[in-house]
Amino acid sequence: MGRLAIGIDIGGQSSKCGVVTQGGTILEQSVVTSLIDNFDEYLELLTGTIKELIQKTANRGIVTGIGIGAPNANYLDGTIRFAPNLRWARGADGQPGIVNIAERLQAATGLHVYITNDANAAAQGEHIYGVARGIDNFIMITLGTGVGSGIISNGSLLYGHDGFAGELGHVCAVKDGRQCNCGLKGCLETYASAMGVARTAREFLQNDNRESLLRKLDPEKISSKDIYDAAVQGDQMAKDIFAFTGRILGHALADFVKFSSPQAIVLFGGLTKSREFFHNEMVQAMDDNLMQIWKGKIQILYSSLKESDAAILGASSMVW
Amino acid sequence: MGRLAIGIDIGGQSSKCGVVTQGGTILEQSVVTSLIDNFDEYLELLTGTIKELIQKTANRGIVTGIGIGAPNANYLDGTIRFAPNLRWARGADGQPGIVNIAERLQAATGLHVYITNDANAAAQGEHIYGVARGIDNFIMITLGTGVGSGIISNGSLLYGHDGFAGELGHVCAVKDGRQCNCGLKGCLETYASAMGVARTAREFLQNDNRESLLRKLDPEKISSKDIYDAAVQGDQMAKDIFAFTGRILGHALADFVKFSSPQAIVLFGGLTKSREFFHNEMVQAMDDNLMQIWKGKIQILYSSLKESDAAILGASSMVW
Repeated sequence: MGRLAIGIDIGGQSSKCGVVTQGGTILEQSVVTSLIDNFDEYLELLTGTIKELIQKTANRGIVTGIGIGAPNANYLDGTIRFAPNLRWARGADGQPGIVNIAERLQAATGLHVYITNDANAAAQGEHIYGVARGIDNFIMITLGTGVGSGIISNGSLLYGHDGFAGELGHVCAVKDGRQCNCGLKGCLETYASAMGVARTAREFLQNDNRESLLRKLDPEKISSKDIYDAAVQGDQMAKDIFAFTGRILGHALADFVKFSSPQAIVLFGGLTKSREFFHNEMVQAMDDNLMQIWKGKIQILYSSLKESDAAILGASSMVW
Repeated sequence: MGRLAIGIDIGGQSSKCGVVTQGGTILEQSVVTSLIDNFDEYLELLTGTIKELIQKTANRGIVTGIGIGAPNANYLDGTIRFAPNLRWARGADGQPGIVNIAERLQAATGLHVYITNDANAAAQGEHIYGVARGIDNFIMITLGTGVGSGIISNGSLLYGHDGFAGELGHVCAVKDGRQCNCGLKGCLETYASAMGVARTAREFLQNDNRESLLRKLDPEKISSKDIYDAAVQGDQMAKDIFAFTGRILGHALADFVKFSSPQAIVLFGGLTKSREFFHNEMVQAMDDNLMQIWKGKIQILYSSLKESDAAILGASSMVW
């Protein structure tokens, strides 16, 4: 019987759990809600699901550990800290701001638990099972509701002094730019995320008199999907919104290259579905802002794994 | 008899060579000029000096290898490439653009030769012998004629895919800002170097009507030392020039922290002599641009080694 690992991808809405073989096959999967206020209740639900999954796969192998990818998770101390999108760990409404989920889940299951932030888990997933196999120096950028990142350097995740390395979504992309949830201004995340693209749309609609399919929508409810749909129908404003996004993202990517000199940048997350409308502008802006030694040499790769799979696989790989 | 190493700090004007013990004592030093057009001639001179140094220290130990820190040097392939300040490797006036100095010096001396860029060598020097002893995650920023950097992550230098990691002097500090020698615009180096401070002075003198001691000088010949001297005498414009520099540098440092989450940033080089006039503004701007998890937590350290010693020590340490 082979060794198995459990990989868990904790998101704001739901937590996806999977039992994974060392070869990277997800044998069983299960989803539990993350929309619970009380951490103890959430933990009980999660523990129950893990135990069910272990039972279901008992004839396939022995589960030897649990790996978790979660927002604001710290590999070095096993905690999740002040995660605004996790009801049970956002430090508001009487809930704790710091939960030691690794320790608690270990006590509840008897299995060793490893935890890292979600973008790191996704980077690990791509490195071992995805498009970055064999690439030992790359930067993973997750373009979802926000912007996350995981940096693989010399084959390993960069953690830094305190486990928080790779917060590239909060690098300043526009000086004194848009207000970010983190308290800073002009963060990359306020431009190059699903949320950021919607903000760009609202700005364009306000500052621009052109006709656009987007004018039919309630500006406050506009989503990146709406803008994508309009772009597919040939709407010029929608296309300009993505081009603007691509230029800001590309300029930021160039500066990331100057830090760790990666072979590739791997892009991942919901916004990459719209890449046909920002890829060229992004690559152009990146190359325009790179020195000769790198111009035209940095590969841009898009994740080849199903979104939830990358995080589950990456999280589980910490066990090996 | 102990083991010894030779450390060489190659600069545009001169190349400093030293014989170093494993404990970090420089037993003998010698300086040769770098101002030679022909690489073969330079190499002959350097080889002669190395042989003399080995003879002089023969009674103290056995030299087991050579480490070199040099601008535009690549650890991975042993070359120096298109170094604008090295006459014999700048790829102009019929001189080669790429010299494989490690291989050539190894052939000439019979000793194993290691090479890395000058900022990396200085970072290594601080890590092993200087102010960063015991600090396994830090970013070294060299504020000299230009701005260089070396990143120590988990105790080791970050090299990236191609050996060029850590070109933080060319991260964009001001969008569409000053023209840099590298071809890009707004690079940190065009503001936070000796050269950059002089450019700031020229801008201030032009855009500002205030009295200043600096008005007595030829603007084209103004140096960072002149501005420091004026600031020491209480000149407000000179003080404002350093404050401006500090704010730009601090803002950039904040973004570097988001990459590798270091315990400390180590500052090194000629411009740090003026730190009394930019330190506070730099720290303030850095903290203003950091998220809560890092605010007030990143140590700023200034090199404790003599400038040439840091590079010689760091270069020699590659041998061990």
